[in-house]
Amino acid sequence: MKFSPLVDELIQTLKCLPGVGPKSAQRMAFQLLERDRKAGQSLSQALSKAMSDVGHCQSCRTFTEEVHCPICASHKRGLSQVICVVETPADVLAIEAGGHFSGRYFVLLGHLSPLDGVGPDELGLALLEEHLASGEVAELILATNPTVEGDATAHFIADIAKSHNVIVSRIAHGVPVGGELEYVDSTTLALSFNGRLPL
Amino acid sequence: MKFSPLVDELIQTLKCLPGVGPKSAQRMAFQLLERDRKAGQSLSQALSKAMSDVGHCQSCRTFTEEVHCPICASHKRGLSQVICVVETPADVLAIEAGGHFSGRYFVLLGHLSPLDGVGPDELGLALLEEHLASGEVAELILATNPTVEGDATAHFIADIAKSHNVIVSRIAHGVPVGGELEYVDSTTLALSFNGRLPL
Repeated sequence: MKFSPLVDELIQTLKCLPGVGPKSAQRMAFQLLERDRKAGQSLSQALSKAMSDVGHCQSCRTFTEEVHCPICASHKRGLSQVICVVETPADVLAIEAGGHFSGRYFVLLGHLSPLDGVGPDELGLALLEEHLASGEVAELILATNPTVEGDATAHFIADIAKSHNVIVSRIAHGVPVGGELEYVDSTTLALSFNGRLPL
Repeated sequence: MKFSPLVDELIQTLKCLPGVGPKSAQRMAFQLLERDRKAGQSLSQALSKAMSDVGHCQSCRTFTEEVHCPICASHKRGLSQVICVVETPADVLAIEAGGHFSGRYFVLLGHLSPLDGVGPDELGLALLEEHLASGEVAELILATNPTVEGDATAHFIADIAKSHNVIVSRIAHGVPVGGELEYVDSTTLALSFNGRLPL
């Protein structure tokens, strides 16, 4: 049934959100229309502002509406000699939530995937190389995802770093804390054996 | 970690959607920012237009941006002598999806719930009574939800209909088609026995 053009359009466009199908979209639209039109208006404004104004940090490529993101702009961390390379801005949030890393980041916004047309240019590796060539980087920590593409990307970047004589390391992969050996997959177990540390 | 004011605001406001928590909101914001800013902009426009322009049908109270909804405005159904009373516009969609009902609707936009301050006025029962008093209604079908509040609402409306000498009926409650007796709750089973039909 066609409901009313505006309501139909709202339901259709809500489906652009990840994990939202026709039923959820309908529920969202009706909830906003019935209960909380103010929230709907503020969501509309937040969306519009974010979509048009949020760009990328000129130093680390994460999302920001300024020239530099808060981390790159800070006196303490912006000139850190340690750079952590991650795939997405969400990874930055995950690492920051721990609060144990005090260097700066470089966000690839993806991983090498030639079939999808994602090469070194799309990942901003020229910008990363500028950082490495400046002589201000002592160590590059690779924190790409432990997937085939993430591994390939890590190795590709490691080669660049080595050519600039920068120490390069990869975060450890192994059994997660609180996990049980019995339920850990065999590849992770193999990695945890290879990466064992002396006690 | 504070990310960037605009991104933070977007994540916060996305949480007003039903079923969306902090992690989903973050995923939605990043997906829109990374992959589909056009979709984000159209969602913003659709939201803004719907929130400000969508009102209620003056005849049946469902959502519409016109004076009357498509059903009430149609020549065929708008003057139907059968009115089906439902709680929400989503119920209208569910019944229309079946395509077996050709009368018109009356949407309560809720159910009687004195503790939440929802009384006859909030449900537009004065408007329903106008329809009943006009003499143009032959039958009122009550399709409120089979909950305590839905039942109470149905009985309340049935009394009004009877005082206007309008035939009033309630949709049947029983074992759903495709359901198995073994897994149907005892109240539903009891209702299905009470509502048995001669073969």
